Amino acid sequence: MRLLVLKQCVWIDDGSPITVGFLGLGIMGSPMALNLIKTGCDVTVWNRTKSKCDPLISMGAKYKPSPEEVTAACDVTFAMLADPESAMEVACGKHGAVSGMGPGKGYVDVSTVDGGTSKLISGHIKASGASFLEAPVSGSKKPAEDGQLIFLTAGDKSLYETVTPFLDIMGKSRFYLGEVGNGAAMKLIVNMIMGSMMATFSEGLLLSEKVGLDPNVLVEVVSKGAISAPMYAMKGPSMVKSLYPTAFPLKHQQKDMRLALGLAESVSQPTPISAAANELYKVAKSHGLSDSDFSAVIEALKGKVQS
Amino acid sequence: MRLLVLKQCVWIDDGSPITVGFLGLGIMGSPMALNLIKTGCDVTVWNRTKSKCDPLISMGAKYKPSPEEVTAACDVTFAMLADPESAMEVACGKHGAVSGMGPGKGYVDVSTVDGGTSKLISGHIKASGASFLEAPVSGSKKPAEDGQLIFLTAGDKSLYETVTPFLDIMGKSRFYLGEVGNGAAMKLIVNMIMGSMMATFSEGLLLSEKVGLDPNVLVEVVSKGAISAPMYAMKGPSMVKSLYPTAFPLKHQQKDMRLALGLAESVSQPTPISAAANELYKVAKSHGLSDSDFSAVIEALKGKVQS
Amino acid sequence: MRLLVLKQCVWIDDGSPITVGFLGLGIMGSPMALNLIKTGCDVTVWNRTKSKCDPLISMGAKYKPSPEEVTAACDVTFAMLADPESAMEVACGKHGAVSGMGPGKGYVDVSTVDGGTSKLISGHIKASGASFLEAPVSGSKKPAEDGQLIFLTAGDKSLYETVTPFLDIMGKSRFYLGEVGNGAAMKLIVNMIMGSMMATFSEGLLLSEKVGLDPNVLVEVVSKGAISAPMYAMKGPSMVKSLYPTAFPLKHQQKDMRLALGLAESVSQPTPISAAANELYKVAKSHGLSDSDFSAVIEALKGKVQS
Amino acid sequence: MRLLVLKQCVWIDDGSPITVGFLGLGIMGSPMALNLIKTGCDVTVWNRTKSKCDPLISMGAKYKPSPEEVTAACDVTFAMLADPESAMEVACGKHGAVSGMGPGKGYVDVSTVDGGTSKLISGHIKASGASFLEAPVSGSKKPAEDGQLIFLTAGDKSLYETVTPFLDIMGKSRFYLGEVGNGAAMKLIVNMIMGSMMATFSEGLLLSEKVGLDPNVLVEVVSKGAISAPMYAMKGPSMVKSLYPTAFPLKHQQKDMRLALGLAESVSQPTPISAAANELYKVAKSHGLSDSDFSAVIEALKGKVQS
Repeated sequence: MRLLVLKQCVWIDDGSPITVGFLGLGIMGSPMALNLIKTGCDVTVWNRTKSKCDPLISMGAKYKPSPEEVTAACDVTFAMLADPESAMEVACGKHGAVSGMGPGKGYVDVSTVDGGTSKLISGHIKASGASFLEAPVSGSKKPAEDGQLIFLTAGDKSLYETVTPFLDIMGKSRFYLGEVGNGAAMKLIVNMIMGSMMATFSEGLLLSEKVGLDPNVLVEVVSKGAISAPMYAMKGPSMVKSLYPTAFPLKHQQKDMRLALGLAESVSQPTPISAAANELYKVAKSHGLSDSDFSAVIEALKGKVQS
Repeated sequence: MRLLVLKQCVWIDDGSPITVGFLGLGIMGSPMALNLIKTGCDVTVWNRTKSKCDPLISMGAKYKPSPEEVTAACDVTFAMLADPESAMEVACGKHGAVSGMGPGKGYVDVSTVDGGTSKLISGHIKASGASFLEAPVSGSKKPAEDGQLIFLTAGDKSLYETVTPFLDIMGKSRFYLGEVGNGAAMKLIVNMIMGSMMATFSEGLLLSEKVGLDPNVLVEVVSKGAISAPMYAMKGPSMVKSLYPTAFPLKHQQKDMRLALGLAESVSQPTPISAAANELYKVAKSHGLSDSDFSAVIEALKGKVQS
Repeated sequence: MRLLVLKQCVWIDDGSPITVGFLGLGIMGSPMALNLIKTGCDVTVWNRTKSKCDPLISMGAKYKPSPEEVTAACDVTFAMLADPESAMEVACGKHGAVSGMGPGKGYVDVSTVDGGTSKLISGHIKASGASFLEAPVSGSKKPAEDGQLIFLTAGDKSLYETVTPFLDIMGKSRFYLGEVGNGAAMKLIVNMIMGSMMATFSEGLLLSEKVGLDPNVLVEVVSKGAISAPMYAMKGPSMVKSLYPTAFPLKHQQKDMRLALGLAESVSQPTPISAAANELYKVAKSHGLSDSDFSAVIEALKGKVQS
Repeated sequence: MRLLVLKQCVWIDDGSPITVGFLGLGIMGSPMALNLIKTGCDVTVWNRTKSKCDPLISMGAKYKPSPEEVTAACDVTFAMLADPESAMEVACGKHGAVSGMGPGKGYVDVSTVDGGTSKLISGHIKASGASFLEAPVSGSKKPAEDGQLIFLTAGDKSLYETVTPFLDIMGKSRFYLGEVGNGAAMKLIVNMIMGSMMATFSEGLLLSEKVGLDPNVLVEVVSKGAISAPMYAMKGPSMVKSLYPTAFPLKHQQKDMRLALGLAESVSQPTPISAAANELYKVAKSHGLSDSDFSAVIEALKGKVQS
C-alpha cells in the first residue's frame, strides 16, 4: 500500500528529486523521517545526539553534523524539536538552520511552539530569502509511526504546495490556515476542547461509579452513540483502573489550557467551561500528577481518602 | 440485510410467535413499531390519536382501542411516551396497561422518564404478577428509523432475555444494567457528558472565529483526530451558520443536566464542568432558545449585539 | 437600655397585655424566649423535652404540655423548630398548634423552612380562621442572645404589625416581604451570597499563603477596606489555623446553595458563581466535613497530602 | 483633628525636617500630596503637565521641572503614576528619579504596578545606593481626599519606618509585607476577592428580582448581617437602577482578576470561583462595558433583550 504513496514523490523541473532535510529525531521526528526514507525520498538528517541518526542512516539517510550544513545541502528542511527553546536554538543559534538557508529553499517547522516563537523563527528564515511554513502536528507516537498525523500549517502558501507530497507521506490530513501563528492557534483550540472533554468524561465515570453503575459500561455506552470519541475508548478503560500511562503529560495539557484561556482573554471571548476545566488540571498538578497522562485529571474529582 | 434480522424472530414453546403490543406512535414510536412489523412480528398498536395508527395498520399491524386491551391481547408490550406524566397515565390510568397485565406477560417502557417514575410504574406492573423492564433509548428520529437505537435496560432479567430479539430489530446495541432506575441514571449521565461537550465545542468554535480562523476548518480538524465525535460533525456546520434545527430541544438538555446534577448531589460527587455548562443552558433559555436545538447553547457565549 | 424596649410592650384594647406562646426551646428558641420574658412579656412555653423549659419557668414563664394548649391559651404564638419536618409536626400534628388556633389568634413561624412547607403550614393555620406569618431569622446563637436577629417576614400584614414590638425585642431589623414564601426565598438568596463569599475568601487565604504572604495579614487588610464583612473577621483567624468550630454546619450551607440554585433554575437566572461554589461545598462534604462549620469549605481547595 | 497628625511630623537628627518629593498629581496623587502639605510637610512636586502643580504650589508646595531634580532635592520621594509604563519612565527614563537618587535617600512607589515592574524599578533605585519601598494603595479618590487609604508596602524596612508618619497622614492603615513584589501580590489577591464578591452579589440581586422580591430590600437585608460589606451598600442601589458610574473601571478589575489567576497558576493553587467570575468580566467586556464601573459585571448575567 505504501507503493501508492511512492508515486507522490517529487521532482523539480530539471528532473532531479527534491532533497529533504530533517532536524530533530526524537519520539516524533524519528518515525516521521523514517516514513520519508521508506518512500524513497532523498533525506539528510541531523540530531543533537548523533547516535539517534544511526538507524536512519542504515536505512539510507545521509548525515550532516550541523543544522546549517543540512539546510545548505537540501531544498526543503523539516524541524521537529521538543520545545520553543530548542526550536529557536536549532533555527537561529550558532551553525543553525538559518545560516544555510537562502532564496529557493524552504523551512518547515513541525514542532509545537507558541505563535510568538513561530513568528520569530519565521522572521529570521525569511530574512535569508527563504520560505517558511509552521506546521504543528496533531497526533502522538503511534500516528507518527503509521503516517496518520494531522498537519496544521500556516505561512508561505507556495512552500505549502511544494511540501504537500511529503506531508501526505507523514500524515493523513493537512490544513493550510493562512498567516504564521494560525497553526499554533488552531492547535491550542483543539487541545482546549480536548482538555474540557476529558474533564467532563471524568465526571461521568465517577458519577456512574458512585450511583452503582459499572463505569466500564459507561465507556461502552458512550462508544456507541453521538458523543463517541476515539479518546474516550482509548483512555476510559485505564482511567477506570486509576492508571494513567503517559501519552500526553498532564502538565502540558494544563499549559495548553492556560495558553488557550490567554488567547480567549486577548479577544474577550468567554470560555467558562475551559476555565473550570483548567482549575481541575491545576488541582491535579497540586496532587503531584504533572507527569502522569492528562487523563489523571479524574483524580482531581475524587474525595480524599478516609482517615 | 434485514433478512438476517428476520431469523431472530421469536416463538414460544407451543410453536406460536410471541405477540407484541406497542403503545405510543409519535416521532420515535412509529418508526420503532414499523421496524418490528417489517421484520414479520405480530404487532398490535394503540395511540391516543387513532389516526397515527393507520399507516401501521396498512402495513399489517392489528389495532386495539385502549392500552388495557393491547396488554390483554399481547405477550409483551412496549410503551414509548413523550414524558413521565404520559408514561404514568398510559400505564396506570383508567383502562391503562396495568389492567390488562398478569403473570407471564411483560411490559417494556422505552420512554425516557426519571428513576422515580420508572420505579412507580414498575411497582404497579409487578403487582399484577407481570414482569417489567425499563429501557430508555439513546438516539433520535434517524436512528429510530434505521434500527440503530441504543437501549439502556434495567429490571427483570428474564424479560430482558425474552425481548432481546425485538431490541435487536429496533436498535444496534443494548445494555442490561441491573435494578430499575439504573437505565434512567445511565441515560442522564450520558446526556450530562453530551451537554458539557456541546458547550466546550461552542467555546472552541467562537474562539476560532474571534482569532480569525475559519470555524468550519476547526470542525474539520476536530473530525480527524482523537476528539472526533459524530455529534460535532453533525451539528458543527449549522452552528457556524447560527442555525439550530431542533433534533433535541435545548430545554430537554437543560432539564437532563439539572437532573444529572441532582443525581451527583445525592452522592456528593463534584461535577464542576457540568455545573458550569448547565449555567450556559440556563443563559440560552433566558435568551428564548428553549425550543431550539440544544446546540443553540453557543448563543449563550456570544456578546450582545451592539446598539 | 432594655428599658426603652420595655416601653414597646403591647396591650390590646381591653387593657390586658397580649399573651405570647413560644414553641421550641433549642439553641435559638431559648434565648429568644428569654429576651421576651426579661422585657416583661406574658410568655407561655412548650418544648418536646420538658426540661429545657425549666430555666425559663424559673424566670417567670408559664408552661403548657402541648402546642395545642399553648396556642389555645395565647393571642400570638412563635415557633422555632429545627427543620421542616419538626415545624410541620408541631404545627399540624396531633395536639399540634393548629388545634388550638382560631379567629383573632396569630401564628409566627420563625423556623427556617422551605417555601413549600411554609405554604402548607400557612394553609392549615388560616383554615382555622387565624393569621399566619413566616419569619425566618438571619443570625445564629450569639445574635439570638443579644437580641440582634434579623427577621425576614411574609404573610398576614396585620399580624406583622401586631407582633412588631416582639420582633424588635428579639431582633435589630425586620423586613416585611409580601406573600408567604418570600421570607424563605430572601433567606436562601442571602445564604447563597454568603456561601460564594466564603468560597472566594478561601481562595484568597490559600493563595496568599502559597505566594508567601501571611494569610492573617490578608484577613486584616480585608477588614480595613470596601470588602470588609463581619464574617471574614469572625471566621478568618480560625480558618488560617484549619479550625472550623461549627456555628453553621457545612451541610446546611450546601443544602441552602442547592435550594437557591433550584430557585434560580425555576426562573432561568444564570448563577455561575454559586454553581461553582456549590461544587466546592460538595467536595468538602465528600471529604467528610458535613458537620464542620461551613468555613471548612476551604479544605476543598487544598491539595491532597503527599504520600 | 489634623493637629494630632501634625505632631507626627518628622525631623532628622540635625533638627531639620525631612524634605518630601511627590511625582504624579493625578486623581490620586493630588489629594495625597495636598494632605501632606496641609499637615505642614516640606513638599516639592512635579507632574508631566505642569498646570496640575499650580493648586498645590498655591498651598505652599515647591516645584521642580523634572523627577531628577525632585529626588536630588528631597530626602524621600513618593511616586503615584497611572500605570507600569509611566512608573518605569518617571523612575528610570531620561532625567528620571534614579538620576537624582543616592545613598541616604528613599523612593516610595505608591503606584499600582505588577511585581515584575516593581522589582525592576527597585533594582535601578538601589543600584544608586538609595532605599526603595513599594506601597500600592487600596482605596480610590474619596479615601485619598480623606486620608483614609490603606498602604500595602514591601521593600526596605528602614525606609518603611522613616516614612511611617507620612503614610499615616495620607492613610488610615499600613502593612509591611517583606520583600519587593509582596505589596503588589497582596493587592491582586484583595482585588480578586473583590471581583468575585461583586459577581456573586450580582447573582443575588438579579435572582431576587426574578422571584419577585425588591432587590433594594436585598441590599438592605445584606447590610444588616454577617456578609455586610461597605461595597455592597455603596454600589447596590445604583446597580439596581442599571447605573454604573465609574469609580474602578471594569477593564481594570478584569485585568486584576487575570493577573491574580496567573499568580494562582504559578503556584498551582486552584481558584474555581475567581476563574468563573473572570469569565463574567470578560462577557461584560464583550458587551462594551470596559470603561463602566466594575459593578456593571451584573449586565453579564442578564438575558438578551427580547426582540
